[in-house]
Parts: sequence; C-alpha cells; structure tokens
Amino acid sequence: MADRIRIIQYGLGPIGSAMARHVLERAGLELVGGVDVDPTKVGRDIGDVIGLGRVTGLSISDKLSTVLERTAADLVLHTTSSYFDRFKPQIMEILDAGLDVISTAEELSFPWLAHAEDAAEIDALARRVGKTALATGVNPGFLMDSLPLNLTAICQQVQRIDVRRAQNASLRRGPFQAKIGSGMTVEEFYAKMAAGRMGHVGLPESVGMVFDTLGKQLVRYESGVEPVVADHPIQTPFFAVQPGRVAGLKQVARAYAPEGEFMTLTFVAALDWEEDCDTITITGRPNLEVKLKGTNGDIATIAIAVNAVRRVRQAAPGLLTMRDLPIVTLW
Amino acid sequence: MADRIRIIQYGLGPIGSAMARHVLERAGLELVGGVDVDPTKVGRDIGDVIGLGRVTGLSISDKLSTVLERTAADLVLHTTSSYFDRFKPQIMEILDAGLDVISTAEELSFPWLAHAEDAAEIDALARRVGKTALATGVNPGFLMDSLPLNLTAICQQVQRIDVRRAQNASLRRGPFQAKIGSGMTVEEFYAKMAAGRMGHVGLPESVGMVFDTLGKQLVRYESGVEPVVADHPIQTPFFAVQPGRVAGLKQVARAYAPEGEFMTLTFVAALDWEEDCDTITITGRPNLEVKLKGTNGDIATIAIAVNAVRRVRQAAPGLLTMRDLPIVTLW
Repeated sequence: MADRIRIIQYGLGPIGSAMARHVLERAGLELVGGVDVDPTKVGRDIGDVIGLGRVTGLSISDKLSTVLERTAADLVLHTTSSYFDRFKPQIMEILDAGLDVISTAEELSFPWLAHAEDAAEIDALARRVGKTALATGVNPGFLMDSLPLNLTAICQQVQRIDVRRAQNASLRRGPFQAKIGSGMTVEEFYAKMAAGRMGHVGLPESVGMVFDTLGKQLVRYESGVEPVVADHPIQTPFFAVQPGRVAGLKQVARAYAPEGEFMTLTFVAALDWEEDCDTITITGRPNLEVKLKGTNGDIATIAIAVNAVRRVRQAAPGLLTMRDLPIVTLW
Repeated sequence: MADRIRIIQYGLGPIGSAMARHVLERAGLELVGGVDVDPTKVGRDIGDVIGLGRVTGLSISDKLSTVLERTAADLVLHTTSSYFDRFKPQIMEILDAGLDVISTAEELSFPWLAHAEDAAEIDALARRVGKTALATGVNPGFLMDSLPLNLTAICQQVQRIDVRRAQNASLRRGPFQAKIGSGMTVEEFYAKMAAGRMGHVGLPESVGMVFDTLGKQLVRYESGVEPVVADHPIQTPFFAVQPGRVAGLKQVARAYAPEGEFMTLTFVAALDWEEDCDTITITGRPNLEVKLKGTNGDIATIAIAVNAVRRVRQAAPGLLTMRDLPIVTLW
C-alpha cells in the first residue's frame, strides 16, 4: 500500500464522479476521500454518489480540512469551476494543506497571460510548500495546445496553426448537450451569450500556451460564438429540438502575431453534426495535417488528469502547465 | 552573440549537411565547426560542402579535437552512423570534451533494452561531466514512440498500439530510394537483407521506449522485411525500375506483452506508392485513430534534432530519451 498515491477527489459533479470511478480502477492510486459543497451529497458514501454500485466507506465532506482530519493524502484531483475567481481559493487551500493538485479548471491551464498575478501567487505558494499544481484536460491541455506544440517538433518553420474540434453532441451526455444550447431559441442563446458564460472556456489559455512556448508575441485576440440552428427535427435521449431552434454552437478564436493571424481555433459542437473529429493543420516547413478520431471529451479529460499524476509527483514544485512536463502517458 | 548556442556539426553527409544549413538559418544558434572523416571533405569550407552557395570561414576537420583547438562550443549535432559499435566512441568523445550532444543515431534513441551496458556507460560519463546526450529523429524518436506515447495521455486503458508509416519514395531523395532497394533484383534484395543491413533501423528502439514507459513487459519481438516488387515500369530522377524488380520494402515488427501482441509497427517505403501518410491506431478506452500527412523524413528529422537543442540545454545531465524531456517544440 505504501507505494500507492493517495488521492482526494475535490468536486463530485459528472466529471469528478467519473474521475473518482477511474481512480478506483487504477493500480497505483488509492482514493482516500471526496469533497463537494452540494448539501445533497455531503455525508453520503462516495460510492453511492458516483454510481459505483458499492460503498467505499468514504463519506463526502464539504471541506477539505474535514477529510484531512480523517486521512493523510498525497494529491487532490480538482474538478469544480472553470473560472479563476471561483477556483483560486480552493487551489490555495489544497497547496496550503501540503498536497499536490491536478485540476481540470480551464483558466488554470495556462494562466500566465490572463491571470498573471494570481498565477504568480499560486506558483509562489506551491514553491514555498514544495508542491506542484497543474491544470489539464483534453481541451485546454491537449488538443489545441500541447499536442499542436508537440507536432511543431518536426517543423523547421511554422507560419500558421489551425485547430478544428468538431463534435457530434448527439453522442455526448445530457449536461454537455445542455451546455451548448440544445433546444434554446436563438434569442435565448444570444441572451445567455451576452450574460457572458456561453461557449467553450479555455481557448485564450490554449493560445497563450502556444504563443508563449513558440516565442510569439500576441498582439490581438478575437473570439466569437454563434448558434448552430437545427434544419430538421432532432431527438436525443435528453432533448427534442425543432427546426429553427438551437442544436449547438460554433466558436472561433483568432490570435495574431505582429506579422498577422498565426493561430485559429474552431470549436463546433452540435446535435446530429456529421463531423466528429479534430484536425490540426500546421502551415510551415513541412506542411502537416493531423486528423484525430475518437477523442471523446469526458473520457479524455479524465484520462489526462489521472495520467498526469505520475509526472506531477516527479515534477519540481510550482504551478506548471502541460508544456513544462515530460510527455504525459498512460502508466 | 553571448546568448547564441554554439553548434558543431559532426557528420556532413546528406542529413548532416541539411542540418548544418538549418542551423545557419536559425536564430539563437551559431555554427562554429564541422567534423567529417571523408577525405574529400576535410579541409574544405563547410559552406562549400553543404551547398550553401557562400563560404562560412569554417573548414571541416576530421577530428573533433582539431575543431575544439580553434573554437569553444556548447553542443554537437551528430549524424554519422545508426549503429552502436560505430557511434559509441564518437558520443563518448563529445561528452568527454564537455559538450552536450544530440544525435540522429537510431540505436541511441532508446538504448536501454538492446544496449543497456553501453547506455549506462554513456549515461555515467554524461553525468560525470555534467552534460546531456539525446538521440532523436522522426523515426525513431517521434512517430512510432514519443508521439504514440503522448497520445496515450488521453487514454484510460490501452490494449494495443499500431503504427503504420507509409512513404511514397518517389518523392524522396536518391540515397533514400537506393536504401530501400530500388532497382535491385529480388535475389539481390534478399542477399543484402541476409547480410544484415537492409531495412529501417530503430523499430526495436521505438518498441523499447513504448513498453518501458507504459510499464509493459516485452516477452517477444519479431521483425521481418520483404521487398515491394514493381508491377509497372517506374522512372524517378535517380532510378529506372522494370516490372519484377524491387521498388521498395515493407517491414513489420511485432512486440508482445505476456497477454499477447501489444504493438505492431509497419514501415512501407516504395517508389510510386500511393499511400503517403502515417497512421497511429490505439485500441483502448477510447479507441483513437490519428492520421498524419506531411511528415517528410529528412525535414522532420532535422527539425526535431535542432528543436531539441533548447530542451537538452535545460535538461539534467545524463543520457536522455524523448520520453524524458518536456515536449520538444519549435522555438
């Protein structure tokens, strides 16, 4: 048992629950506790909440400190909020408790541009306590940043990087279908967008990691979201969408270096969308086109967070990003 | 000038010459010397030998020590032999001189299985002198090992890894067309194969890196090479191949874990071969299929060796492999 890394799952929503289930099936890892503020979950057995079909003997607490009164731990898997103002106190609390942390928080995946001061504060704390913080996921963390960066390894020059992620949302879970606006009117979609939290989070972070690593100066960043409107009736286990209603969204981010547009990120996720693949196109010497099929968002995000555990445990203290670690692999 | 990394190019064949040309066009690098044992090159200006169209003021020496009498240096780019017995004294000599080294020597890319004792000796010397040695290239070094490993980051389970590299050799340089047997009779092909040095070098090293990193036990390894025979007359700028003669080769390596075949590597390179792409297929959770177009071998190998300079300069001393470094990128 001494060699097993003791994990606390912080956040037990759909992704956190699936992550806890995966931790329980991985050799080398031991789930020792769970944290969630949801009063309908606090006090219940983790196995019950995550749909394990058996009890674990571990009850969910609303505070990390309560878990740590009962058990020692090594590393926290953190899946609560995407947004810096919400997760920052949690990340600080985890590091303060002397634990490594791997988070799926999009805005932490490369915080050195949009949240430089807060990032420096987390980094300083991590170094002071000798622990490591990392945020990762399939996107941001992989498809639109660390993987394209890895592909530039075989390029002598790069003039442009385009990444297009297209997902047939009919194949995904209900909350994902909801998140992309399925069933809304176009007016509702734009109203929600105006309220600020419609669309995929993390495109600026992917741009930041790529520009910073390649030594490019980011002079302008544009991003837009628009609805994909159903042209035929669509039925999923979760939504019935009439023609004219929203079936998903398309988001495009453009990032410019002084010499012009250098990176274009396109994110399309819609019900009944035929395309279901990712394409990375690098214009340079050589020109590269890389097509990926099968990069299911939930499975992949859980995998990369758990697979990163080994590298994080070996890493130097501090707030790291995916471009700082040796390649993360299954282990 | 103080910030530029001073490079010696060791080996000025086709790849070494192209690498030297690339070093000369890269900001942050300074070519300070060249080594080659070929008496037709020794004493000539590097610019003349590599087809630069101008003189560099640097004359080629047959010994590294001679170059180092004239200049200080930081790192050697090494492109001489694929085979351990031939390159080992050169790598030791470079480290002994207090220089970092990046080599394209296939058998050095992951030497911990086939050449463990020799590798340990190089590693010990590197640590003693505080320098870093790495071997890389597009294959081994990337397509069949570090890139598939990187793709396992988004997998929760992996049952099998298949990599197929298919190259239309008509698009490649003459020496490559010759190396794959173009124009030979089938008898000549098999005779050369029996002599031991026909086929792509590096498949066992790719297998070794993947198995070792994923914690798999390698219980059996099989590899076979066969000719691709022309079924129509083929004309390239370098070869005229009649039907029935050899147009290229197909090589398959199979690597087994205790539970069965885990990794299959297929390497096809032939004149007029329609397929010109690489496919990485991972069977697991999720199933992934990744297709790459444009991974030109020479351009990519030169790129990855030169791009690795930054990571090697930052790395801890020792003999490293691509899975030990943070992702190599253009810089």
